[in-house]
Amino acid sequence: MIDMQSGSITSQFAIDSVGVTSLRYPLLARDALTGETQRTVGEWQMSVALPADRRGTHMSRFIEELHAQSEKSFDLDECLAFAKRLTKILHTEAVEVQVAFTWFRLVKAPVTQKAALLEQKVTFMAKTIPVAERELTIEVSAKALCPCSKAISDRGAHNQRSDLKAVLTFHEDALLPSINTVTELLESSASSPIYPILKRDDEKFVTEAAYDNPAFVEDIVRTAARQMSTLDGVSKFVVEAINRESIHAHDCYARIVHPK
Amino acid sequence: MIDMQSGSITSQFAIDSVGVTSLRYPLLARDALTGETQRTVGEWQMSVALPADRRGTHMSRFIEELHAQSEKSFDLDECLAFAKRLTKILHTEAVEVQVAFTWFRLVKAPVTQKAALLEQKVTFMAKTIPVAERELTIEVSAKALCPCSKAISDRGAHNQRSDLKAVLTFHEDALLPSINTVTELLESSASSPIYPILKRDDEKFVTEAAYDNPAFVEDIVRTAARQMSTLDGVSKFVVEAINRESIHAHDCYARIVHPK
Amino acid sequence: MIDMQSGSITSQFAIDSVGVTSLRYPLLARDALTGETQRTVGEWQMSVALPADRRGTHMSRFIEELHAQSEKSFDLDECLAFAKRLTKILHTEAVEVQVAFTWFRLVKAPVTQKAALLEQKVTFMAKTIPVAERELTIEVSAKALCPCSKAISDRGAHNQRSDLKAVLTFHEDALLPSINTVTELLESSASSPIYPILKRDDEKFVTEAAYDNPAFVEDIVRTAARQMSTLDGVSKFVVEAINRESIHAHDCYARIVHPK
Amino acid sequence: MIDMQSGSITSQFAIDSVGVTSLRYPLLARDALTGETQRTVGEWQMSVALPADRRGTHMSRFIEELHAQSEKSFDLDECLAFAKRLTKILHTEAVEVQVAFTWFRLVKAPVTQKAALLEQKVTFMAKTIPVAERELTIEVSAKALCPCSKAISDRGAHNQRSDLKAVLTFHEDALLPSINTVTELLESSASSPIYPILKRDDEKFVTEAAYDNPAFVEDIVRTAARQMSTLDGVSKFVVEAINRESIHAHDCYARIVHPK
Repeated sequence: MIDMQSGSITSQFAIDSVGVTSLRYPLLARDALTGETQRTVGEWQMSVALPADRRGTHMSRFIEELHAQSEKSFDLDECLAFAKRLTKILHTEAVEVQVAFTWFRLVKAPVTQKAALLEQKVTFMAKTIPVAERELTIEVSAKALCPCSKAISDRGAHNQRSDLKAVLTFHEDALLPSINTVTELLESSASSPIYPILKRDDEKFVTEAAYDNPAFVEDIVRTAARQMSTLDGVSKFVVEAINRESIHAHDCYARIVHPK
Repeated sequence: MIDMQSGSITSQFAIDSVGVTSLRYPLLARDALTGETQRTVGEWQMSVALPADRRGTHMSRFIEELHAQSEKSFDLDECLAFAKRLTKILHTEAVEVQVAFTWFRLVKAPVTQKAALLEQKVTFMAKTIPVAERELTIEVSAKALCPCSKAISDRGAHNQRSDLKAVLTFHEDALLPSINTVTELLESSASSPIYPILKRDDEKFVTEAAYDNPAFVEDIVRTAARQMSTLDGVSKFVVEAINRESIHAHDCYARIVHPK
Repeated sequence: MIDMQSGSITSQFAIDSVGVTSLRYPLLARDALTGETQRTVGEWQMSVALPADRRGTHMSRFIEELHAQSEKSFDLDECLAFAKRLTKILHTEAVEVQVAFTWFRLVKAPVTQKAALLEQKVTFMAKTIPVAERELTIEVSAKALCPCSKAISDRGAHNQRSDLKAVLTFHEDALLPSINTVTELLESSASSPIYPILKRDDEKFVTEAAYDNPAFVEDIVRTAARQMSTLDGVSKFVVEAINRESIHAHDCYARIVHPK
Repeated sequence: MIDMQSGSITSQFAIDSVGVTSLRYPLLARDALTGETQRTVGEWQMSVALPADRRGTHMSRFIEELHAQSEKSFDLDECLAFAKRLTKILHTEAVEVQVAFTWFRLVKAPVTQKAALLEQKVTFMAKTIPVAERELTIEVSAKALCPCSKAISDRGAHNQRSDLKAVLTFHEDALLPSINTVTELLESSASSPIYPILKRDDEKFVTEAAYDNPAFVEDIVRTAARQMSTLDGVSKFVVEAINRESIHAHDCYARIVHPK
C-alpha cells in the first residue's frame, strides 16, 4: 500500500512543527525531585519538524509510542527522554513533547489544620532542538487584595481571585525543583494563598492576612519573579498574573520575562 | 437531483429538535420596550421538530431566512415572529429560535460620573410549540462580599466577582421589559454593581458600599428572585448566581426556579 | 464565633439548589456493572435545596465529605449513596451530586488490531428528591458521512466528526449497564466509530465502512434512540448529536427526548 | 487622595507588560485597504511596559481612551496610532494594543450563487517598541480531505473541518492588504473553502472539488506559506492549520514560521 507521507517533494518551506494535539491520555505524573506520583489525565501535544523535501510525518507513531510507555511514571526528565526516543522513531532531529495535567497538593487550613486537596495545572514541555530543553509550567490561583482600595477606603478593600503562572526553563544539567516548591513560592507572591477547606476560624485568618498584605498585579509578578530567581538551575522564566477584578467585568494582568 | 431529506421513513422516534447551532451572524439587536438598537454579533441556534415519518429537515433554509432578515432590527417579539415564519418555510408547527449576543450599557462611575460602556450577555429565545413563548436571558457580573467573613474578621472581608443570570418567560400578551431595567434589577441583588471605569474617588465608594452591603450567594438569588417577581408579565423565571470565590479554587452557586 | 449561615430568615423564596461547582478532585471512577476502576480527575458539583426560612448552607462540609471518601471507588450507585449521606450531614432532604470525568476504553484498530486508549467523557449524577434518581451521561465522538452528498456526487462524500451524547435515567431498582456497553451502542449509531490508532490498512477500512454507511444527523439520533431503548432499566433518555460540518463554519445538531 | 500606582519603588524587575485584558467593547472595524467598515464587538487587550522603579500603571486610563475613540472606525493603522497616543497618556514608550473580533464576508455558493455571510476571526495588534509594528491575524475554517485515505480506499476519503490561521507582520511603511484578500488566499490552501449556504448542486460541487484536491495538514501549511509570501509588505509570518480529524478524537496540526 502506498506510503504518501514518506514521499519527497519540492517545497521552499520546511515545517517547524507538525503532529498531534488535543489528545487526552492517562498519565502517571511524577515529581522529578520528590518522586511523588499521581495518576491523572494528560492533554498531549507531540510534534516533529520536517525538512523542505519531506512531505509528511507518520501521525499514528506518536500514539503508538505514547501508548507503549503510558503505564510508566512520567516526570519532566522522562519527558525529554521520550522526546529523544521519538527522534529515532520519526527519523528527525527535532521533536517537541508537551503534556498538561491537573495535579493536587494536600493543603491544610491555616488555623484548624483541616486538610484537603487543592488543584493546580502543571505542564511539562521538552524539546530536542536547538539544544535539549526542559520547561515546567505551574498555574495556581491565589487571592489579590488591592492596596489602593485599602488605602483610600474607610473600611474594607476589594479583592479577587488571581490566576498565577510561572514558566521555567532549566539549564541542561540542572536538577529540577519539586512541583510543590515552585507552586508554594508562586502562590506566596499574592496577598494570600487560597484553600480547599476553610472553617470560620480559618476564614477570619485568611481575610485578615490578605488585608494585611495588599498587592497590585504589578507587585505580584515582581514578587513572583524574585521568588523564581531564587530557584537553582533556572536559565530563564516568565511569570504572569491575571486578576479577575471584583469591581470590573474585565481582568487586569502583568507579565515579566527574565532575562529580557 | 434527489431530495433525500424529504423522504418518508418508518421510525418509532419523532425528533424533538434538529437544526443549526454555533452559527455567528450580524445582529441588529433591539430592545422591545425602548426601541434602542445595537449592531452586534449573534450566536444563533435554530431548530424544528420532525414527526416520526419524516427523514430530515432542510438546513440551508435556516441560513437563507436568517440572511434575508439580517438587516432588520431584531427584538424578542421579532424573534417569535421569525420563528412563526419559519414554521411555514420548513413545513412544521414546531420551531425554536435562539440568539445570544453581547449588549452594552452606558454606565457612570458613582462619584466622578465618568461614563463608559459595560458589557453583558443577552439571549432571546422564542418557540412556537406547545404555545408561543418568549424567553429573555440576562447575564451580568457584580460584586459579592461575604457576610460571614465581614462579621468574624477584625478588618476586611473577602469579596469576588459574581456572575448573575436571570431567565424570564413572559405571558403571551405581556409587554416586554427593557433589557437595561432587568439588568439593573439583577445587578442590584449583589453587594455592589461593577463598573467599566473607576477613578480613586469611585473606587473608595464601591469598596465601602460593598462592605456595607454583604450578601451570601443565597442572599443574592433570593433578592434577585424578589426583584424579578416585581416585573409585569413574567410567567416564570430562573435566577442563578455563581461566585468566583477569592478564597477557593472552586465556585459557589445558587439557583431559584419560580414557580416550582 | 457567629454562625450566620444557620440563621433563620423571612424570605418568600426557597432555594432549589445551592452548593459548590467547578471543583476538581481526584476520582477513582468505577463501572457499576463490570467493577473496572480508573483513577481520573473529577469535576464536581454538589448542592442542596434550602427551605424559605433557612439562610444558608455550609459549603465547607461538601469538601470535607468529598475528601473523606476520595480514596474509595465511586460508581453511579455510590454517587447516590453519597448524596444520601450528605442529606444527614447538611440537614436537608434534597441533595444533588454530579461528577464529570474522562474515561478511557482500550480500542483496537479494525484490521491491524493495534490497540490504544480512546477518551470519552462520562458524568454521574444522583439526586435524592423527589425520588432517588441515578443519571448516566456518556459523550463520545464518531464519524458522520452525509447521505445526500454521497448520493448526488460522482465521487467522494463530505464527512466530519460528530459529537454524540446520551443521558440515561434509571428505574430505582434497575441494575446499571456498563459504561463501555452504552458507549459502543452510542458510537455505532453514526457512520463509523473513530479510533486512537489507524495504520494504512485500517484507514482504508474506516474510509470505506463510513462511505458504505451514510447517516444524517437525524438518522444518527434515531438510531441512538433505538439503541438506548434496548437497554434494561432505563426509565427515560435524551440522545443528541452535533456534526462539526466540514462544509460549513456552523454545526448541525439533533436531539430526541424519550418519552416526551 | 494618595496615588499609590505612581509611587517609586526599588525592584530589580522591570515589567514587560501590564494592563487590561478580556475587555469587550463595541468596535467599528475597518479594512485599511478597501475602507469597508463593520460594526462588531472587540475583545481588547491593552498594556504598557513599566521600568524597574515605577510601581504601577493607571488601568482606568486604558478604558477612558478606548471609550473616547470607540465611535471612530478602527483599522490596523489606527491601532498603531492609538498605541502611540497611549504612550503619551500613560507616560511610557512601550504600549501594545490588541483587538480580536468577528468579521463577515459575503460568500456565494459555487453553483447556485446563493449568497450569505461567512464568519471569521480577525485580530489587529500594534506595538510601539522596539520598533513600531503592525500585526494582522486571520482565522478561517476550510475543508481538508486526506490524500492517503483517497489513494488507498476503493471509495470515499475522510475529510474534516480544518481551522486555518495566518499571523502577518508588516514592514513599517508597507501598505496593508485587505482582510478579504488574505482570507481568500488562506482558505484556498486547503482542499476546498466552506460556505454559509449550499444547495444540492453546490454540495455536489464542493464534495467533488475537495475530492479532486486532497491535502495533508503539511500540504496546507506549505501552500498557505507560499500564498502569504506573495503578499507585498509582509516582513514575517506564521501559518498554522489544525485538522479536526473525523477518524480520531484528537487533532492534527502543522505550523510554519517564516523566516526562521
